[in-house]
Amino acid sequence: MNAEILSVGTELLLGSTTNTDARDVARALAELGINVYWQSTVGDNPARLTECVYRARNRADLIVTTGGLGPTCDDLTKEILARTFGRELYLDKKAEESVRAYFTERGLPFTDNNLRQAMLPEGATALPNDCGTAPGCVFRAGNVIVAMLPGPPRECNTMLRKYLMPWLRELSPETIRSHMVRMFGIGESAMETRLRDLMDGSNPTVAPYCHEGECMVRVTAKAADEAACEELMAPVVAEIRDRMGDLIYGIDSPSLGHRVLELLEEKNLSLAAAESCTGGMLAMTLTEIPGASLHFRGGTVVYTEDAKTRLLKIDPAFIAAFGVVSAQVAARMAKRVRKKLDADLGIGITGWAGPDGDDVGLVYVALSVKGQCFVRRLQLGKTTPRGKIRTRAVGNALDMVRRYLCGLDV
Amino acid sequence: MNAEILSVGTELLLGSTTNTDARDVARALAELGINVYWQSTVGDNPARLTECVYRARNRADLIVTTGGLGPTCDDLTKEILARTFGRELYLDKKAEESVRAYFTERGLPFTDNNLRQAMLPEGATALPNDCGTAPGCVFRAGNVIVAMLPGPPRECNTMLRKYLMPWLRELSPETIRSHMVRMFGIGESAMETRLRDLMDGSNPTVAPYCHEGECMVRVTAKAADEAACEELMAPVVAEIRDRMGDLIYGIDSPSLGHRVLELLEEKNLSLAAAESCTGGMLAMTLTEIPGASLHFRGGTVVYTEDAKTRLLKIDPAFIAAFGVVSAQVAARMAKRVRKKLDADLGIGITGWAGPDGDDVGLVYVALSVKGQCFVRRLQLGKTTPRGKIRTRAVGNALDMVRRYLCGLDV
Repeated sequence: MNAEILSVGTELLLGSTTNTDARDVARALAELGINVYWQSTVGDNPARLTECVYRARNRADLIVTTGGLGPTCDDLTKEILARTFGRELYLDKKAEESVRAYFTERGLPFTDNNLRQAMLPEGATALPNDCGTAPGCVFRAGNVIVAMLPGPPRECNTMLRKYLMPWLRELSPETIRSHMVRMFGIGESAMETRLRDLMDGSNPTVAPYCHEGECMVRVTAKAADEAACEELMAPVVAEIRDRMGDLIYGIDSPSLGHRVLELLEEKNLSLAAAESCTGGMLAMTLTEIPGASLHFRGGTVVYTEDAKTRLLKIDPAFIAAFGVVSAQVAARMAKRVRKKLDADLGIGITGWAGPDGDDVGLVYVALSVKGQCFVRRLQLGKTTPRGKIRTRAVGNALDMVRRYLCGLDV
Repeated sequence: MNAEILSVGTELLLGSTTNTDARDVARALAELGINVYWQSTVGDNPARLTECVYRARNRADLIVTTGGLGPTCDDLTKEILARTFGRELYLDKKAEESVRAYFTERGLPFTDNNLRQAMLPEGATALPNDCGTAPGCVFRAGNVIVAMLPGPPRECNTMLRKYLMPWLRELSPETIRSHMVRMFGIGESAMETRLRDLMDGSNPTVAPYCHEGECMVRVTAKAADEAACEELMAPVVAEIRDRMGDLIYGIDSPSLGHRVLELLEEKNLSLAAAESCTGGMLAMTLTEIPGASLHFRGGTVVYTEDAKTRLLKIDPAFIAAFGVVSAQVAARMAKRVRKKLDADLGIGITGWAGPDGDDVGLVYVALSVKGQCFVRRLQLGKTTPRGKIRTRAVGNALDMVRRYLCGLDV
């Protein structure tokens, strides 16, 4: 089965809203093994929406629309779709009740334009809206299935997951499964050079992704059931492991930060961080993850020299002797924060994040453990933007922790 | 002029990535007064991309593509667009130099597939990529203008704002100017209710935006020159100021964090922060801004109770007496970090960010200044996602500092 996602809303064309609905629908369909080849966005304009629907019915087996189900005259998705597929709209009694109940429950005055929301195309199955008023619906028209979801993201996503996906799952005999192989320490083109030939396969497919300094490869298989999918993927994942070795930090791990917290958990160790140029980004990255406090003990943001002295008792003369951006200062920060917070591992990061200065992009990341200290010197490029320098520095810090905990060369 | 935005990337069709590029391009074109009637998304598939380009050239004067400019064989946007418009690709020497320089600066090995990125369609103007390797380009083909931007959001947005928008602005005899009025402390619908009637105007237009707990209104005018634009906007901006009062923190200020640093600069004061549930997000938000170290002295991430004791010397008995999420603990954190870092203002944030627990969404934010302490109790909702709770807490902390420095009620 292949699908087209049709997003309706002038606010999308103006850029006032990000189209997260299209992403959520795409992701849900991918989970169901339904291919999405097209996504189209149009405004609240009858002619252009009609044109889109005609095109979609010629190239897709499933059309999923989002938006335009509300009570105002701009909300014309249902009218257009019904007309395009030659259906009348009727007032669905159950939908009417639930729209009326929504207003009564909240003590809001009911205006008649809200009845538009309870109109459904003949033969459609209503999809309840647990988070708002406008119900969605799904119907079959010949070889095409048409589903309509509301625009507000929470309404859309809830209806999608709770009502539309189960309805679609009934139809499809195929299962689709995928694994995401995640790496740190290699660029997109270098990764692709090493895995090029694997990307030509069709089942499983192998697709590269890059995001903020991390590289990923998604391996996806389709088969009769989950076990058959796994069987198809196993040799390909093994081959990728073989070629990429310890650059791989995890398979299906949500992020390098998650992996680091998992490893700390496994070894029952704790981490603390002293951050200069990253200014709290490492701490924030780890504390984004629920439960981080079990193994991340905290940190200091010592953005100024004075703060390094006040919070970590680093002697100003020591800083003056080596320079504030130096392996020595990074190492001392790592050791001091580790001791200060009674942690097993300490990270120290100091560098020039720019945009001004001669040494922009030079960053030292230190990892201190009892009796040992490792330092990475990063040269991230003079013209690299500040945000990217910080992200890379944080990634390298996490990578050093990961490699140390796995017994690899740091 | 009317435009079509064409997003290229299989990751978009799979829902692994949110299409923020389409939103950014749509917003930029709206600022230039260019109508967007269509947005289409296709995967890295030559046939479907070609079909999209043929359709776009028949219904738009401007085609803006995002994605598919990278070094891998999936990246085929330039090839397809060049072919569709009957152009050859050539190796642009300047683009080649800058791609090679990117690798040299970072000490990365250069592989030949990277040269693909330096290929441009004949007659195109290269658009430099300040944040990555793949340059974009823009060319005219008869009545149609074609512009190609890279996919990674920061690369795309920087190139768009810095190079494509000025290029497009040259084409139009009209001048377009806008002001962004930024607020904190009001929701989208409440703001809209207060400004509803102003949004019906056509020159200037008034458009609301909401983003991570901040509300904004963009006022945009078209006229013969800049002065005429300003004259059209002045009474509308004054009216908005009048209605929204001190909820407005700035006009054209890039963010609340920027505004806070500006105010600290004006008054020559300094700030320090002790963060529990926000885990470094406040520090990170401020240190994202170049020059932050002049007035942000640093902070502590005291995510655990033990860290609060070790870094801020808060007595465990005090924490036990009031509870770790309490006005008292927030106030003490604020005061201690202020003193510890010898700052004029101290922030303390403690709360439950979830997802588990009875009091998820309860956050205390304290602002300590010499002889005074202010505390806000936030109830951000039990089902609010963790990231949103943290963002709101940081926004409130910055808002308290802003209001204090402006002499308003905190």
